[in-house]
Amino acid sequence: MFKVNENYLKLPGSYLFSTVGKKQRAYQEAHPDKKVIRLSIGDVTQPLVPAIIEALHKAVDEMGHAETFRGYAPDLGYEFLRNAIADNDYKARGCQISADEIFVSDGAKCDSGNIQEIFGLDNRIAVCDPVYPVYVDTNVMAGRTGTYDPVRETWSDVIYMPCTADNNFAPELPKETPDIIYLCFPNNPTGSTITKAQLQEWVDYANKTGAVIIYDAAYEAYISEADVPHSIYECEGARTCAIELRSFSKNAGFTGVRLGFTVIPKELKSGDVSLHSLWARRHGTKYNGAPYIVQRAGEAVYSPEGKAQLKEQVAYYMKNAAYILNGLKEAGYTVSGGVNAPYIWLKAPNGMTSWEFFDHMLENANVVGTPGSGFGPSGETYFRLTAFGSYENTVEAVNRIKAL
Amino acid sequence: MFKVNENYLKLPGSYLFSTVGKKQRAYQEAHPDKKVIRLSIGDVTQPLVPAIIEALHKAVDEMGHAETFRGYAPDLGYEFLRNAIADNDYKARGCQISADEIFVSDGAKCDSGNIQEIFGLDNRIAVCDPVYPVYVDTNVMAGRTGTYDPVRETWSDVIYMPCTADNNFAPELPKETPDIIYLCFPNNPTGSTITKAQLQEWVDYANKTGAVIIYDAAYEAYISEADVPHSIYECEGARTCAIELRSFSKNAGFTGVRLGFTVIPKELKSGDVSLHSLWARRHGTKYNGAPYIVQRAGEAVYSPEGKAQLKEQVAYYMKNAAYILNGLKEAGYTVSGGVNAPYIWLKAPNGMTSWEFFDHMLENANVVGTPGSGFGPSGETYFRLTAFGSYENTVEAVNRIKAL
Repeated sequence: MFKVNENYLKLPGSYLFSTVGKKQRAYQEAHPDKKVIRLSIGDVTQPLVPAIIEALHKAVDEMGHAETFRGYAPDLGYEFLRNAIADNDYKARGCQISADEIFVSDGAKCDSGNIQEIFGLDNRIAVCDPVYPVYVDTNVMAGRTGTYDPVRETWSDVIYMPCTADNNFAPELPKETPDIIYLCFPNNPTGSTITKAQLQEWVDYANKTGAVIIYDAAYEAYISEADVPHSIYECEGARTCAIELRSFSKNAGFTGVRLGFTVIPKELKSGDVSLHSLWARRHGTKYNGAPYIVQRAGEAVYSPEGKAQLKEQVAYYMKNAAYILNGLKEAGYTVSGGVNAPYIWLKAPNGMTSWEFFDHMLENANVVGTPGSGFGPSGETYFRLTAFGSYENTVEAVNRIKAL
Repeated sequence: MFKVNENYLKLPGSYLFSTVGKKQRAYQEAHPDKKVIRLSIGDVTQPLVPAIIEALHKAVDEMGHAETFRGYAPDLGYEFLRNAIADNDYKARGCQISADEIFVSDGAKCDSGNIQEIFGLDNRIAVCDPVYPVYVDTNVMAGRTGTYDPVRETWSDVIYMPCTADNNFAPELPKETPDIIYLCFPNNPTGSTITKAQLQEWVDYANKTGAVIIYDAAYEAYISEADVPHSIYECEGARTCAIELRSFSKNAGFTGVRLGFTVIPKELKSGDVSLHSLWARRHGTKYNGAPYIVQRAGEAVYSPEGKAQLKEQVAYYMKNAAYILNGLKEAGYTVSGGVNAPYIWLKAPNGMTSWEFFDHMLENANVVGTPGSGFGPSGETYFRLTAFGSYENTVEAVNRIKAL
């Protein structure tokens, strides 16, 4: 008689964004006359830029002719894309990352969920609190998190690193020593960042304690301040302790195109065992590459035209971020983020919980955000708004909130 | 100090097709004047058909305009594709599968590797021997297979079901009762099939013993004989015991496009727990959907033009299969497969092992095939040739083999 993976049954409720979506749809069905504005899920709204559209059409044409048709992609991704990434995202910033340390994938969500597989079940994980829920949820599914406390909404074997107004949303080194440390900067959901000097402390700590850092830099394109690192490999010693995850979803609008990559330096080892070789084995055995046409679209992100067009696209969203940030400040809210990230982090007023404020916003302003408590216990009483709407909708949403 | 997943270290050597590729490249580098013909990896060579190219261009254009741009796809896949699958692959064959039992993915390799995750580690798996190595390898990675015997090349906790000339390459019900049964028909690598009556026996057996069947039907488009089932849901009772995996790689040439799907009927349960809900949770947490443009390409597979064009494409490859099958028979080889599948299964002559015959073919005919032993111990002394080459190359390869 077959047995299911009982770890799945420990997961409380459904995935955060599914619940948000359900509540929104229920409200919309009950009030078909209302225009609900979604500033909740981190999905982009601007179309792909012309350089990318052109690259896609060209690659599609290649697939239609025997001489230029491409079947299975190389295990780690096409060299043209891995070279473009190595040159632009790493060498140009002085980071020593070579093309064969880059693994192209269909997105950072898959990578951030799958990366835990190459580690044993007896590792203790540490996460920022609040943070993107996929890190913890996928460790729950693997059986690495102990038991769930439904009151505190925490797992017994997870080390939570609170990121609150008290520490300016930057985690402190944990008291218990973790084996695997998930860091996400610019942070989802708080929109906060840490400086290069602060990140260097984490790298030093990981090297000293033998921990591995899984560094999720999905939002690096939104960094505007000079002392904020774009890659963990800007720090000395990161090659022996850090894996970096990157996405094309937010810098190039690929949420529906699907492309990302993971960097594992060859020096990153446990004894003799290189994590690079384990991840290569996983890629070779369980994955079959990102589509050729999508990898060509990724290449176009790094072309001169692509770069110029995407700079404008990011600026468009950051104009939204500034509008939200300033508008809510004017309305008397306590807000942060929105400077190096497309997320604005908002304190719910009058002692409201995150979900109470969610309902309040949905019902009274017809604006959908994401309850901060969905990202971890320290997210309670907070609320996330995203800058990924259209400018018109963003302005309308902020004005409605101000009018409340 | 972080610890790696030690199960990965148990895997012997590298993934089969990587080794084949390395040997081929080494030979080619040493003999740059020789034209090596690859009839090894199951990669297609014919370009995408016009109906699919057209759908791709149209979808790319949609992604370039704000009104038609698509971000994150629905968790299970777009309804337009799931409806087309349900109607054409299931309802048209009298199978009761609804669109919301279909999970669209980026390919059957990922699905066949990931599906084991929703089961506990204490399940005993059974596999056809020989078979596609991903089933066993991904269970090794999860820690479900016990210890490896390097002499017999078997795992202590895996039930092997020999498929040999003695049983016409159709597995017999195992003596030990398994919890999870992987069946792949038309079979990779033997190219053999079983009849609907034979498959019904497996469904009855699984329902009786409480086992789950993971049915990989990636090659169903190549079935030419009437009594061979295209889906396990043609059998009575399959909805309570079977998961089906499907691919667009071989019926539509999507090896470099990446699209597949998994079917989990809602009645398939362990106690109260539905496997459909577990897989939905995995999709929602660890996956972010197949690209919109690729899902539109998948939809075009089911259009009248797409169907007609793909029928021709499959016929092209099956003409190759017939050429290989007949040519090798004429040359005195013992061969099977190639009638309902794009694979021809060949017995190495003169007591040669699979790898000896691989080297013999590479060196003397400059033809690359896949050693049967790479698919399981009962594949030893066998050799797989695929029909996915161009017709010209296939003819040349067969003529070279005949001339040996």
